Amino acid sequence: MARPASLSGFPEWLPAQGIVEQHVLDTLRRTFELWGLSSIETRAVELLEQLVSKGEVEKEVYLLRRLHEDPADAGEEREGRQLALHFDLTVPLARYVLENAGQLQFPFRRYQIQKVWRGERPQEGRFREFTQADVDVIGNGELPFHYEVELPLVMADALTALRAIGLPPFTIQVNNRKVAEGFYRGLALQDVGGVLRTVDKLDKIGPARVAELLVAENGADERQAAMCLTLAGIRSPDVSFVERVRALGVEHPLLDEGLTELARVVEAAGEHVPGVLVADLRIARGLDYYTGTVYETVLDGHPDLGSICSGGRYDELARDERNVYPGVGLSIGVTRLVSALLGRGFSRATRSVPTCVLVALPDEKRRAECDFIARALRERGIPVEVSPSASKYGKQIRYADRRGIPFVWFPGDERDDEVRDIRSGEQVPADAAAWEPLDEDRYPRVVPG
Amino acid sequence: MARPASLSGFPEWLPAQGIVEQHVLDTLRRTFELWGLSSIETRAVELLEQLVSKGEVEKEVYLLRRLHEDPADAGEEREGRQLALHFDLTVPLARYVLENAGQLQFPFRRYQIQKVWRGERPQEGRFREFTQADVDVIGNGELPFHYEVELPLVMADALTALRAIGLPPFTIQVNNRKVAEGFYRGLALQDVGGVLRTVDKLDKIGPARVAELLVAENGADERQAAMCLTLAGIRSPDVSFVERVRALGVEHPLLDEGLTELARVVEAAGEHVPGVLVADLRIARGLDYYTGTVYETVLDGHPDLGSICSGGRYDELARDERNVYPGVGLSIGVTRLVSALLGRGFSRATRSVPTCVLVALPDEKRRAECDFIARALRERGIPVEVSPSASKYGKQIRYADRRGIPFVWFPGDERDDEVRDIRSGEQVPADAAAWEPLDEDRYPRVVPG
Repeated sequence: MARPASLSGFPEWLPAQGIVEQHVLDTLRRTFELWGLSSIETRAVELLEQLVSKGEVEKEVYLLRRLHEDPADAGEEREGRQLALHFDLTVPLARYVLENAGQLQFPFRRYQIQKVWRGERPQEGRFREFTQADVDVIGNGELPFHYEVELPLVMADALTALRAIGLPPFTIQVNNRKVAEGFYRGLALQDVGGVLRTVDKLDKIGPARVAELLVAENGADERQAAMCLTLAGIRSPDVSFVERVRALGVEHPLLDEGLTELARVVEAAGEHVPGVLVADLRIARGLDYYTGTVYETVLDGHPDLGSICSGGRYDELARDERNVYPGVGLSIGVTRLVSALLGRGFSRATRSVPTCVLVALPDEKRRAECDFIARALRERGIPVEVSPSASKYGKQIRYADRRGIPFVWFPGDERDDEVRDIRSGEQVPADAAAWEPLDEDRYPRVVPG
Repeated sequence: MARPASLSGFPEWLPAQGIVEQHVLDTLRRTFELWGLSSIETRAVELLEQLVSKGEVEKEVYLLRRLHEDPADAGEEREGRQLALHFDLTVPLARYVLENAGQLQFPFRRYQIQKVWRGERPQEGRFREFTQADVDVIGNGELPFHYEVELPLVMADALTALRAIGLPPFTIQVNNRKVAEGFYRGLALQDVGGVLRTVDKLDKIGPARVAELLVAENGADERQAAMCLTLAGIRSPDVSFVERVRALGVEHPLLDEGLTELARVVEAAGEHVPGVLVADLRIARGLDYYTGTVYETVLDGHPDLGSICSGGRYDELARDERNVYPGVGLSIGVTRLVSALLGRGFSRATRSVPTCVLVALPDEKRRAECDFIARALRERGIPVEVSPSASKYGKQIRYADRRGIPFVWFPGDERDDEVRDIRSGEQVPADAAAWEPLDEDRYPRVVPG
């Protein structure tokens, strides 16, 4: 876990922990690029009016103000150009797409890995600064359904790649808004949005209370409420959920469409990443803008972590005078994930520094010679540092040992140079122009904890 | 250049430009790790009191305020816990070192690549958000001089590695505070700091005006002022500057020490990175906390860009009850550098997307089959996407062409699959389980513009 920082909610890692985070980020990036997604980065700052126009006013936003303000700024604020830190990467994506639509190729396949900020109350112990990794495909005018099949596979590949460093098995839980909405309409419920929001509280307040609320607030009778709960209870790793929904006897064209789509997502995942994805008709996702498939991902056996990767289909990411831009996307909570990898001991780095070889210094007068040994090794891609001082060799070896540096290089006097593997104590003659470490020792690796 | 964004000073790149930036960042990271520097990342936010305590009150700082404030926050502000965005990576490093001193190994070798923010007035056309890449070595109690020789070599290696993508030749200009200070003291000038700050204005106001100011404001007579200007005019790519300074006849122990140190920096650089570093006694660096060697780096022929990599030795980065932490460090202005690479046409990416192969879709019904072809290629590390729709092959090829995707894969019907290099038009039978692109086509590359 991060050492307690002086500001709660702003996690920072020690160098060895940072190596684990960097490995996660590199793995995500590699996977996203193998799927042909382009990287973009947006500024940390958006206009407040754009942040709140997305109906996300309940979000805790950090506003910016210059320490040395002057009338020009105040004017800017008066004109509604108040700056604020972004709280997710979806609103910035929408703005970026509108601003650059003429120069982007659609469907626009992008990933984006950046920090976001939430102005939570410090007491709540939540992250106020954290890194997200988002993948989205954005259409211009239309976006075929098959991207709803593709994008969870991208995330499944990315998370599967992290299994090698100790990430526990995970489950991507999938539903489709059209299933729930079609089902509710088929039941003749009117307040579809209200029912959805109430059912979304299942995990928090339990089925009995949800049933009560459906009757009290969403105009359901007891039979309708029970049917909604039955639907939400259906879960299957294959397409058998379709028959179980059909057996409830509710009919609606939107329900048919949703079941067909959801079955396609489950089928494709079963073929490409077996055992990773389940249909779970309880998944609602709070956000109003989802219109098709929705996704939530949990680490098996760690439900307390919540969802580490969520998203869905939205028919209107953005809109300008001429066009509407639909999208499908998922977002990994990188900081939450890394915090779990470190805090629960799933993963660790094999050493705390990149250095593979410490060149020992026999005498301060020979530093220039040692610098050239270091350069010769470095030119062949071996991370090296030269000892900070010409202390006794025992002390220099301890310098390496404390950092986990595996090799110490001893410059020759009359004899050849020698290199010692300080883990085994084995010491052999070596030539800086030719010696190679094992590949696994060259850089720190990240391994299961 | 970046497409004009709606907020001046907050640059954003299009995907192809982002590939250039990512290449720069990867190159810096690789070089820094070859020198055994560990990566750290600090939160974007510091307490205002810590930011301004460094005497940098003239910096334009962005303060944070929660949109939904409540009395608890106001309390936090009252207690001086006002949050602000960091404006460099040095103040955060000092705080990180103090906070984690017990868990860090000293000398602490670190690099840090992050965004910083400056609350400049929007009219000024300066960056208000930009990325810096810093390298520093921090000692606990003491820090040997040889790090002042080592760290400019790290940056010289990093920038030299960027020559391959079109970065023009560059010059690291080096001076030593002790040379100037010893020289001024040897001249019996009292207001050493004032003289230093005035001489630092040479580039802006010219020698005549500097001489006037030295007399008018810093207590120099005309001979002393002329001597200061003569010193500032000395520049040499080798150690010949030492004799030229000696010839001025000024004597002071601090001057001797400074000349010896500066000569060592110049000598070592001449051996390790010939032609890159010069002694330039005009370099002063405005910041008060430098105490030894100082560095500034210009792109040859592009003085208007200003320094792209600066830094120096500071005897007191931080201090707690028991210890003082001296350091040496340099910082690259990554955004300024990338902006030059793009805006002056030095560098470009060979394509705008990571995708190497577009799998063409003969028929929407065969999408599952195409997805498996894509997976087979991807599993061998080839970036692939499947065509968004089963339009005519001509249209699908144009989809690839517009993005610079070099290969289109045609799934076989009765015959084998075939792959076409759309640049040459050559089309050959291919097996997704075995076909390989040339290494240079696998990912987009960054090349001279």
